[in-house]
Amino acid sequence: MLPYTLIEKKQRGETLNNDEIKFLVDGYVKKTIPDYQMAAFLMAVYFKGMEAQEINAYIDVILNSGRRVKFDDNGAYYADKHSTGGVGDKISLILAPLAMASGKVKVPMISGRGLGHSGGTLDKLESIPGFSTQMSLEEFQKQTDKIGCALIGQTADLCPADKMLYALRDVTATVRSIPLICGSILSKKIAEGIKGLVLDVKTGNGAFINKYEDTKHLAEQLKYFGEAYGLSVRPVISDMNQPLGNKIGNWLEVEESLEVLKGGGPKAVRELSLVLTSQMLAMADPKRPEEEIRKELESLLDNGAAYDAFLKISDVQGADVNYLERPELYTKPEHVITVKSTRQGTISYIDTYQLGLDAIELGAGRRAITDVIDPKAGLIVHKHLGDKVEKGEPLITLHTDIKNAADKLGKEIEDRFHISENAFTMKGDLYEIL
Amino acid sequence: MLPYTLIEKKQRGETLNNDEIKFLVDGYVKKTIPDYQMAAFLMAVYFKGMEAQEINAYIDVILNSGRRVKFDDNGAYYADKHSTGGVGDKISLILAPLAMASGKVKVPMISGRGLGHSGGTLDKLESIPGFSTQMSLEEFQKQTDKIGCALIGQTADLCPADKMLYALRDVTATVRSIPLICGSILSKKIAEGIKGLVLDVKTGNGAFINKYEDTKHLAEQLKYFGEAYGLSVRPVISDMNQPLGNKIGNWLEVEESLEVLKGGGPKAVRELSLVLTSQMLAMADPKRPEEEIRKELESLLDNGAAYDAFLKISDVQGADVNYLERPELYTKPEHVITVKSTRQGTISYIDTYQLGLDAIELGAGRRAITDVIDPKAGLIVHKHLGDKVEKGEPLITLHTDIKNAADKLGKEIEDRFHISENAFTMKGDLYEIL
Repeated sequence: MLPYTLIEKKQRGETLNNDEIKFLVDGYVKKTIPDYQMAAFLMAVYFKGMEAQEINAYIDVILNSGRRVKFDDNGAYYADKHSTGGVGDKISLILAPLAMASGKVKVPMISGRGLGHSGGTLDKLESIPGFSTQMSLEEFQKQTDKIGCALIGQTADLCPADKMLYALRDVTATVRSIPLICGSILSKKIAEGIKGLVLDVKTGNGAFINKYEDTKHLAEQLKYFGEAYGLSVRPVISDMNQPLGNKIGNWLEVEESLEVLKGGGPKAVRELSLVLTSQMLAMADPKRPEEEIRKELESLLDNGAAYDAFLKISDVQGADVNYLERPELYTKPEHVITVKSTRQGTISYIDTYQLGLDAIELGAGRRAITDVIDPKAGLIVHKHLGDKVEKGEPLITLHTDIKNAADKLGKEIEDRFHISENAFTMKGDLYEIL
Repeated sequence: MLPYTLIEKKQRGETLNNDEIKFLVDGYVKKTIPDYQMAAFLMAVYFKGMEAQEINAYIDVILNSGRRVKFDDNGAYYADKHSTGGVGDKISLILAPLAMASGKVKVPMISGRGLGHSGGTLDKLESIPGFSTQMSLEEFQKQTDKIGCALIGQTADLCPADKMLYALRDVTATVRSIPLICGSILSKKIAEGIKGLVLDVKTGNGAFINKYEDTKHLAEQLKYFGEAYGLSVRPVISDMNQPLGNKIGNWLEVEESLEVLKGGGPKAVRELSLVLTSQMLAMADPKRPEEEIRKELESLLDNGAAYDAFLKISDVQGADVNYLERPELYTKPEHVITVKSTRQGTISYIDTYQLGLDAIELGAGRRAITDVIDPKAGLIVHKHLGDKVEKGEPLITLHTDIKNAADKLGKEIEDRFHISENAFTMKGDLYEIL
């Protein structure tokens, strides 16, 4: 079997058999197939797609490239949530302790770092002083069973093929490919040993997949291939045509998550957290009325139980919880600049993708894998779609230590908001449960 | 400028500007852009193509990655021929000395090695003991001016960007892309310092571009972009639905070229040599009647002048001309096996591409860049399209030192020939002058 022949086969739009998919991925992991041939193959997949049988084989070989967590059959329902990525999406930080607080599910959550314009749960957790996201799969399993939740990063022995493929896709513009996304997400989630998976599939100008039809297709594919592996999968399509909540940036998002965990915070963040966590609990106990689940979760936010769960996880994972209890102790950025509107009207469009990149420019993310994140950097959005704005009203606040970036964005960031003189009505729903 | 953004731009089918093309190719040469990003870009070009302005910029940056030959303005007409590659295509070995013998043009010819299923002029020349294809551009220029012809391989200082891009395309299945072919061929030919370029654009099952329409498009594109650089370009489309002539393999093709250079040899090889060389002389002197040119060239083959020119070039370039004068001195392969037909009828199809690969399997070409060629290995085809064949008649003879390959092909090579009970009529012409 020659890698060249397989690249050509995919280039012609033909279907590779299981052995051929295995040959390519295994060869890439063993470094007998070089980066450049895999890059050419991935780009051919981007253009020509994969058939169901190829996607199954692709998930399989990635899954089998490493170890797989196996929880004891102790009656607990192990579940996780995955988001396809957006701007200001801090739901994992709320959902995981909220679900844990309910006692109805256990949440072994393996998260990733920021990618492209989009933030990553791991970077957000690590903005909490002392919070460690590195542990062995044994420790991960033990903590999940003991306290009901563990929040970690991908270990070296879990889907190493995905780690390598992901890094390559990230630099070769082959992230936005539905079969490749399926392979990457599902292999890791199956390897976690969970039974139920809630998917937050983002759509809109701040998502990786912008068009609703493509998002829906991705959601359906993820459900189909996840279920083929025996997972229960509940996809929720959610709107990413504006940042989720007000705060973008690692520590800023922890702050906002704490607000929601204490029963407050922006309505959109609270709502999506409730919807996604409800789905997770509904999978664990399908007969229970959804209204009852919802009410329970609302009270767990309002009575501080979810907040306590987050403190517990943080404490167990080495964090200095003083910062969570008194966020005002956190180091302040050198520059805090509030940009005011020079126009008036109604916010009719927000360039969410660009706001994600702006946050990176302020220090909140990486442009190269070697960049160091400034955990306190980011943006606070004061206006959302449909909001009325007057001249001189605050639109957005920049948090950064980088003077150049603050000066540059201070001038241009107003342009991310389109302001219309007419009233604005949201098209479509904020989320849709599939 | 980020390579990632440019890959994405091409992926979306957008047009890159000159600076962006230059940034990519220069970065690749300087190794600031890694192989895998260039591979992804090339595959995106394969699927999305390039606009005229991009192809111009691509040729330009490859051309300017190295030196450029500049012949003195001495009234001589410098011309070359390029073939897009086929099986048994030994025309360069005949055309170059034939054109030189006419005294009407000077031929500074820079050739390549075998690629994929297709042979290369350089490997054929090097099968002649002592023949050296390596010299500096100064020596190359001097020899061309002195004797009228020089036959060399690409030097390190001529289009180094093409050398790197070509090697990458060869292993990433991105050879068959019209804009990339244009960039590769034309940059090198422009760098040679020629005025006129005859192109032998192959079509059919043994060519890199199989379909006539695609071949014609390639021929037109090569003419268009070559002329944009001030070259005179004459494309000839020629049929590659069967091997050209009888012999495939490096020394075997030298032998057949010698036959043609001495006025004999297979009709198809003599004919295409005359057509292509006529085009070259017609470019040098457009007013001269083509019939007169043709007659002159026929006589140069028949009176031994072209043969003498080949001996002269070979002698100047260090070859032991004894082997050219007495080819029977050449080492014989260990296995010479003639495969006979088990069927009778008319040859209706020849899998030319596969015969090219078969020759490689016998030792005539490389499967990896590190493979060493056996110059005496190859095939002799005894039947062509439309020929009648009886049971027991010789179809093909294998020349090899590799017993396994001989045994394997001895059994299966008959299948390369489809034999029909009905009469067979060639579709289309053997060549077409555009």
